Amino acid sequence: MVKVGIVGVGTVGESVVKTLLKNRDIIKARAGKEIKVVKGVVRDPSKKRGVDIPLTTDYRQVTESEEVDVVVELMGGVEEAYKVVKSALSHGKPVITANKALLAYHRFELQQIAGELPFQYEASVGGGIPIIKALREGLSANHILQMSGILNGTCNYILTAMEQGGDYQSALQRAQELGYAEADPTLDVNGMDTAHKLLILASVAYNIDVRPEDILVEGIEELSPVDFEFAQEMGYKIKLLAIAKKRGENRVELRVHPTLLPKTQLLSKIEGVMNGVSVIGDVVGETLYYGPGAGGDATASAVVSDLIEVVRGSNTPMLGYKKPLEMGDFQLVPQMEIESCYYFRLGVEDKIGTLAKISSILAEEGISIKNLIQKQREGYVKLLLSTHRSKEANIQRALEKLRAQKFMKREPFFLRVEEK
Amino acid sequence: MVKVGIVGVGTVGESVVKTLLKNRDIIKARAGKEIKVVKGVVRDPSKKRGVDIPLTTDYRQVTESEEVDVVVELMGGVEEAYKVVKSALSHGKPVITANKALLAYHRFELQQIAGELPFQYEASVGGGIPIIKALREGLSANHILQMSGILNGTCNYILTAMEQGGDYQSALQRAQELGYAEADPTLDVNGMDTAHKLLILASVAYNIDVRPEDILVEGIEELSPVDFEFAQEMGYKIKLLAIAKKRGENRVELRVHPTLLPKTQLLSKIEGVMNGVSVIGDVVGETLYYGPGAGGDATASAVVSDLIEVVRGSNTPMLGYKKPLEMGDFQLVPQMEIESCYYFRLGVEDKIGTLAKISSILAEEGISIKNLIQKQREGYVKLLLSTHRSKEANIQRALEKLRAQKFMKREPFFLRVEEK
Repeated sequence: MVKVGIVGVGTVGESVVKTLLKNRDIIKARAGKEIKVVKGVVRDPSKKRGVDIPLTTDYRQVTESEEVDVVVELMGGVEEAYKVVKSALSHGKPVITANKALLAYHRFELQQIAGELPFQYEASVGGGIPIIKALREGLSANHILQMSGILNGTCNYILTAMEQGGDYQSALQRAQELGYAEADPTLDVNGMDTAHKLLILASVAYNIDVRPEDILVEGIEELSPVDFEFAQEMGYKIKLLAIAKKRGENRVELRVHPTLLPKTQLLSKIEGVMNGVSVIGDVVGETLYYGPGAGGDATASAVVSDLIEVVRGSNTPMLGYKKPLEMGDFQLVPQMEIESCYYFRLGVEDKIGTLAKISSILAEEGISIKNLIQKQREGYVKLLLSTHRSKEANIQRALEKLRAQKFMKREPFFLRVEEK
Repeated sequence: MVKVGIVGVGTVGESVVKTLLKNRDIIKARAGKEIKVVKGVVRDPSKKRGVDIPLTTDYRQVTESEEVDVVVELMGGVEEAYKVVKSALSHGKPVITANKALLAYHRFELQQIAGELPFQYEASVGGGIPIIKALREGLSANHILQMSGILNGTCNYILTAMEQGGDYQSALQRAQELGYAEADPTLDVNGMDTAHKLLILASVAYNIDVRPEDILVEGIEELSPVDFEFAQEMGYKIKLLAIAKKRGENRVELRVHPTLLPKTQLLSKIEGVMNGVSVIGDVVGETLYYGPGAGGDATASAVVSDLIEVVRGSNTPMLGYKKPLEMGDFQLVPQMEIESCYYFRLGVEDKIGTLAKISSILAEEGISIKNLIQKQREGYVKLLLSTHRSKEANIQRALEKLRAQKFMKREPFFLRVEEK
């Protein structure tokens, strides 16, 4: 029998215990051994829980105990979780975690500490979707040319609701009523949760070590119903995407932002709280992975499947690399060198010559307009326009010039646009 | 260095050789060792090929050679391929195959012969989509409640074309002109190729050993434009699906047939030659996998990723089971006990009382009508109707009774319907 200790027995932890009991038969057949949770670490042992396992408040009773073969870390947070995982690994115990924030900051250190010990983290990205396994093993023959992921169910729920009409605030409120958004939804809606997950995927695809602070991250808070009208008219959906793009030999763009995505793409059809990742490999072409990105059971499915992997005896290195790349490490493309198509929402005075001035500012920066919609508002005019492919630096300079114009009645707003 | 012998150097074999050269750097970093093809087995060594490797006509020079560490079988067919793979395994060499027909007939014998030796076959189902890995490892904590797969690109291309108007023959011809269908497309359009793949998936999900002849397999040859009109009006797409459904504790329905699938399901949005599989697990809920199901490069992506797995040292048993299920093996639900909703296309005389008679025949078998469309044709009437959930046995008895009626002007035709 394989004995498991869980650090953090909340919704996911309880689902893990229940899944191991409910599917005991098939799990034993697949793993070759019975898997049993023998101890849980919690902050408050007096709290009523839905499962019956021995509890402790001291994590070392799990990470250092000879009674425990594998440690599952489900406590969340960064520094305390790092201590726990480090303790488990240094006591020779394989680790399974669902903690994306921990990995966003410490994955390379943890890989080093783990060495040959199994370290699995399928649940950290895309909940129950086995996307780590797909990237690390299923597509390992490929250079990954591009990944585009819907990785936050809260945001996708809000965006799907806004698409059907309604503003950001009421969509967020509805998400909170349904339990899809936390009381404080900041880390979801500002894109940071998605950025954590993107860094994990990027490490598997490119073996690149960067931090959330290093990459471009924008949230969905500033989106307005009129942006969805423009998207609808031009054949797009708006999705918060985690994007990775290989540029040249060994450079990669990593960014998180709301994106206008062509309706023809399968990824754009993923609605509500569901998650999905499109991965383009240089050999395979496009593959896509879809499923529930959160929730106790979906996450437990990934954690328990990881447990079965560990019991079977997995030999895959944590991030999928046994050796460094001979051509040298991948480098992050600086934010100002990012290339994309763009969408602008401008509130300007209703005056002759305004459009001419805007066009000439854009032209100075080499930005060419693709689509334009003008909407009359009370006291001003709304200009919605999309551009052909441009550089972020040019866009930022154009925005600065626009802001300096007297005819600007609103702070200019922009989004990025993905083309086929 | 790991030395590979390929048996069968056609389109896929050439892509494997090219991928190993082109992505040498990333493959070496991920596998930890260089992987090189050292010999190919072909029928005609004088034929011009796109790759430069030593060739032989004798497979034993690969399967028995001390110069070869891993054998990749890409020759196709069943009995000759079985001999080759058996020879490789009995000489202690791990095997990788893309051969779905071989596995449809011999997967359990091969698993036994392989024992602890790695035996990978990701390319055999869904081309470049890592669906075997998802099922065998990523979702291993789950009882699989249902799988629905679009697993044949030729059929999906033809069905997508018919949906846009046009009959079966002209859609098939166009598929042949574009190289999506073989000169003899029988095994694709009659559903047998899809059945082979379903049996492989079912073995991983349920550890069930059945043969293609044991399960219900129907092709797409009898579909008519009017079926697509009905589907369109009622909110369905028509897809050739491989379906597996868990029934009760340890019984499973396995079937392949053209299916009316609600347009709201993501699977229904997979068009053209692409493949996709929806998998519902009892813990995770629905996940879906999408990508190119055929083609040299997509298949090579799976083969080379399998090679990397073998070099890393995979310990996963071939079909994912280390032990038998304590609750006993899964059993196939007999075809007559299959349950589904149905669609009928009936050509009947334009005469008072006909519809009443049809309704009463269906009612006798406990079949209740859900939707009905009547279309006037020259000299007869077309009745298109769908039913609520019924048993196959009742449907077959109703069909027999209908066939005996004088007012029937055409052989009755039916399809199965998937509901949410």
